[in-house]
Amino acid sequence: MPQYFDRRNLDFLLYEVHDAPELTKYLYFEAHDRETFDLVLDSVTQIADTLMHPHYRDVDRNPPELKDGKVTVHPQIKPFLKAVGEGGLIGAGFPFGKGGQQLPEMVGACVDFIQMAANNGMMYTGLTSGAANLIATFGSPALVDAYVAKMLGGQWQGTMALTEPQAGSSLSDITTTAEPQPDGSYRITGQKVFISAGDLDAVDNVVHLMLVRIKGAPKGTKGISLFVVPKFRLEEDGSFVDNDVTSTGIYHKLGQRGTPAMHLTMGDRGDCHGWLLGEANRGLSYMFQMMNEARIAVGITGAAIASAAYCASLEYARERPQSRRLNEKNQLDSPQTMIINHPDVKRMLLFQKAIVEGSLSLLLESARLSDLAHVSKGEEKENYTLLLELLTPVAKTFPTEMGVRSVNEGLQVLGGYGFTEDFPLEQMYRDIRITTIYEGTTGIQSQDLLGRKMTIQGGKAPRLLFAEIDKTITEANTHETLQPYAKMLGEEIQRLQKVTSTLLPFAQQGDYERFLMDATLYMELFGLVTVAWQWLKQGIVAQNALSDNSPGESNTDFYEGKIQTMKYYFHYEVPKTLGLAKRLQDPEVLTIVKEREVKM
Amino acid sequence: MPQYFDRRNLDFLLYEVHDAPELTKYLYFEAHDRETFDLVLDSVTQIADTLMHPHYRDVDRNPPELKDGKVTVHPQIKPFLKAVGEGGLIGAGFPFGKGGQQLPEMVGACVDFIQMAANNGMMYTGLTSGAANLIATFGSPALVDAYVAKMLGGQWQGTMALTEPQAGSSLSDITTTAEPQPDGSYRITGQKVFISAGDLDAVDNVVHLMLVRIKGAPKGTKGISLFVVPKFRLEEDGSFVDNDVTSTGIYHKLGQRGTPAMHLTMGDRGDCHGWLLGEANRGLSYMFQMMNEARIAVGITGAAIASAAYCASLEYARERPQSRRLNEKNQLDSPQTMIINHPDVKRMLLFQKAIVEGSLSLLLESARLSDLAHVSKGEEKENYTLLLELLTPVAKTFPTEMGVRSVNEGLQVLGGYGFTEDFPLEQMYRDIRITTIYEGTTGIQSQDLLGRKMTIQGGKAPRLLFAEIDKTITEANTHETLQPYAKMLGEEIQRLQKVTSTLLPFAQQGDYERFLMDATLYMELFGLVTVAWQWLKQGIVAQNALSDNSPGESNTDFYEGKIQTMKYYFHYEVPKTLGLAKRLQDPEVLTIVKEREVKM
Repeated sequence: MPQYFDRRNLDFLLYEVHDAPELTKYLYFEAHDRETFDLVLDSVTQIADTLMHPHYRDVDRNPPELKDGKVTVHPQIKPFLKAVGEGGLIGAGFPFGKGGQQLPEMVGACVDFIQMAANNGMMYTGLTSGAANLIATFGSPALVDAYVAKMLGGQWQGTMALTEPQAGSSLSDITTTAEPQPDGSYRITGQKVFISAGDLDAVDNVVHLMLVRIKGAPKGTKGISLFVVPKFRLEEDGSFVDNDVTSTGIYHKLGQRGTPAMHLTMGDRGDCHGWLLGEANRGLSYMFQMMNEARIAVGITGAAIASAAYCASLEYARERPQSRRLNEKNQLDSPQTMIINHPDVKRMLLFQKAIVEGSLSLLLESARLSDLAHVSKGEEKENYTLLLELLTPVAKTFPTEMGVRSVNEGLQVLGGYGFTEDFPLEQMYRDIRITTIYEGTTGIQSQDLLGRKMTIQGGKAPRLLFAEIDKTITEANTHETLQPYAKMLGEEIQRLQKVTSTLLPFAQQGDYERFLMDATLYMELFGLVTVAWQWLKQGIVAQNALSDNSPGESNTDFYEGKIQTMKYYFHYEVPKTLGLAKRLQDPEVLTIVKEREVKM
Repeated sequence: MPQYFDRRNLDFLLYEVHDAPELTKYLYFEAHDRETFDLVLDSVTQIADTLMHPHYRDVDRNPPELKDGKVTVHPQIKPFLKAVGEGGLIGAGFPFGKGGQQLPEMVGACVDFIQMAANNGMMYTGLTSGAANLIATFGSPALVDAYVAKMLGGQWQGTMALTEPQAGSSLSDITTTAEPQPDGSYRITGQKVFISAGDLDAVDNVVHLMLVRIKGAPKGTKGISLFVVPKFRLEEDGSFVDNDVTSTGIYHKLGQRGTPAMHLTMGDRGDCHGWLLGEANRGLSYMFQMMNEARIAVGITGAAIASAAYCASLEYARERPQSRRLNEKNQLDSPQTMIINHPDVKRMLLFQKAIVEGSLSLLLESARLSDLAHVSKGEEKENYTLLLELLTPVAKTFPTEMGVRSVNEGLQVLGGYGFTEDFPLEQMYRDIRITTIYEGTTGIQSQDLLGRKMTIQGGKAPRLLFAEIDKTITEANTHETLQPYAKMLGEEIQRLQKVTSTLLPFAQQGDYERFLMDATLYMELFGLVTVAWQWLKQGIVAQNALSDNSPGESNTDFYEGKIQTMKYYFHYEVPKTLGLAKRLQDPEVLTIVKEREVKM
């Protein structure tokens, strides 16, 4: 029984549903094939099995400490970072020329998924690769030389330093300041909060990719620049000196305790040097490269924790005897049945499976779009990019919001034991809770989806998406057993389009508050439908395998499980769109206030 | 701003909506009036403000410890128990003749609510009063004399000792054994797990109300007896000796850490004495008295934690500036607005308020039925009892399941700060999670609702309920502004009845597994409709106050807030019935397995 993820399912999604090897037809990925992908997955599983998963509980119980300005993390972090750095896993997606393995994002997504399912408290490498990628993309050759190799090697940690005490969701209110110096560097002063992996003793240096306002820059997001601000800076004599980034505070968190969240102060002594990345005042658009990657990564984390929870719940449900089946209630001489045989428990497990595997499929769909955009040109590239932009907030939100609910149900499967530290569910319930907040809360993602992604280029992105979904529906219709589900999905698309057309006029009238009033419910509706599409895709592949081949007993069980879970999703989850659509089309306005401040 | 509950709202529900003073017309309650009720509420608020709420965080951070067989609890527990014992609050609902104040359950529910909102980690008194009530009801005069006064005085703690390692949801599998002795007592051997307040050093004795099987008793629930098993037993010479109940283990819990959950072993030395309560083999039916009270009490705990979370979220949302309003996004010179003015945040707060106040109203409705059943006779008494029995699983489940979601949204209001220990939301998120498990999980409550309460006496209980709801609809129809909501509620009742009539035939065919397959979804539907009824009741009272009187500014705000929240509930929550009803009427069976053990 899998401990925290199901490799069979990962292979199914990566190879059978989303056909990662197809990417190797493109020149950029031609060095790869399924074998090299498998090697990477085996290698990360080995690290996850030995260096991550055994410490899941322990890393949580011994969180980082800040003492005398120094942050000590769990002793397991250092060997872990060494192993992934030396194994080339941090920069696996980087081009060969920049120290990477030129692997597709699809494989990178699986690498992240396995790691976060094993131990999401060790959330370090995604931050480092994202930060290194920004330097590699926008940095001068000198900056690239100085930073990228050390970061990909796991010796230096990367961070994204965006949030300030007064600027969380509202990045336009950032006040950290950069003052230009004659030597081309800048002096940085200000504060950043909630900086994940913002300081730790397991690496030699920490490299902050920091949003900063250059003195005199325009107000708002148009005056934000991106800087590289290291903990230790390289002097001309080759020595490293303290760069005046002080760890002012460490947050005590509900979960994901293995990774420190830091409050940092820059320039207490007036000696914090920063280096501008790319052009001045374009920092936010650069940062969005990392932020979009990070949003997908948070989605992966949500799906991964939900996966680990599903494995734990399933194991418990298969081994825990309790009560007799409802039609055999009075057969007191017969032994108790395993709780998986109670319909209510089976329902909760199917919910968990539907969320985990539906989310992962959506995430791999997004990674595939990223890969295809990377290797395409012209209109094709533009279309892939648009589709990816549309799906990114959904791929961040569905796996996290539904992941929270799924872990919650997973804990319920264990009853009272789920509430105790004897089982990992209580920790997963704590860990996953941050994912709907990280990298833009659900509210922010929802405004991005409805307020931007649905409307750019006159709604081209959703048109492209619906065309893709239509292809899936057409294919599903070739199987008699899938026709009812193809029909349901078609109806859901119509419902979603109807809801959208009810809302768009508010945007056209310039009333964005009304337009986006219930954006979060719109996101929920959109996510339900998008994942229904992913389940129909999975259903087609499973049905093909069952119809055409002789898959063998264990494969038959696997594919039948897929069909069963697809049915569960359509019969139990999809109907929730009815209530959401009703509310979204309801003209009653209850949450917009007339006055400046509302009474409650 | 209220810190953890809103007294104005409590007064509204207790006096304006559910008219507690009406009870004082009955002989049994004639010593009381609104003034005596207020005195009790003031007195418990005083204790909650001084001895409970200031220690909310601290009690969580210093959980009970088991060392050398002794359980040490937080030092604050002892003065708290002393205060509530001396203040007469533990036995407030007991008759005058049994050391109580003969207060209605309605007031008792408010007492519990205030305490649990202040600090649900100090969950001791409800257990003691429930256990004492069992002894007072079914015990011999000697048992009553020996136990009740000490328990109501707060010197002795009471517990309900039901669960065993192999018997959680399945009480019929209890194996703890009693062997009769010549002196009339019994020798007890066995194990109990998850015993809340099962051992603590803040009291002189712990009195377990324990489900036990007398040697040779019939199998299943028909062979279970109820015993009083104290930690220290009184010898004939007046001394107390150790009664061979060993604290074998203590659970480390996700939340509600102030109250120890114990693993107890009885009779390790063969010297554990127990005293039979009432008749042999009728223990489970006796225990149901305490269990039904406890179910309501758990519902109250859910509503109370959700109340404290709502107060904390509301305070934060009123004081936290972030971003500008969506239609003023580009006015970068204007200060940031308070987040309560963002529709998405307002929606989350309205959700919290709707759940907290809707739940509390349902709980007071249930308490009122209990009071009326107590003072009535004949058919009237039977009807009140039936209604209470029908509503009990709902009053346990809606406030806890929706409470979990409500605290989850409350944490989201605070963004990243909600995930840190700087704010209480993270603790509330942990604390409330046990409430959907305690005293019968949501799955068990749902089977009780659909499988028993909807069918007893040919469906008399739901008929009585729908008649009550009809009265509310009729009254609402006298206000033009409430007519749309009266109409909606009427439609929801029809929908619920239609769903019920789709399911009942399975019971008539004896296929209980199919009948109860989706009982949890049925519960969700039933709860949504029942609380819609409670919101319409509140709407009527608020509308009357706004129409008939000159309520004054602060009262106008209060009543308008009620109308607003009622509308929120009908426009945002009630539509969820559509998806639930669709699923419940859908013939597709996905969770019932043919074989003895299911593959997944």
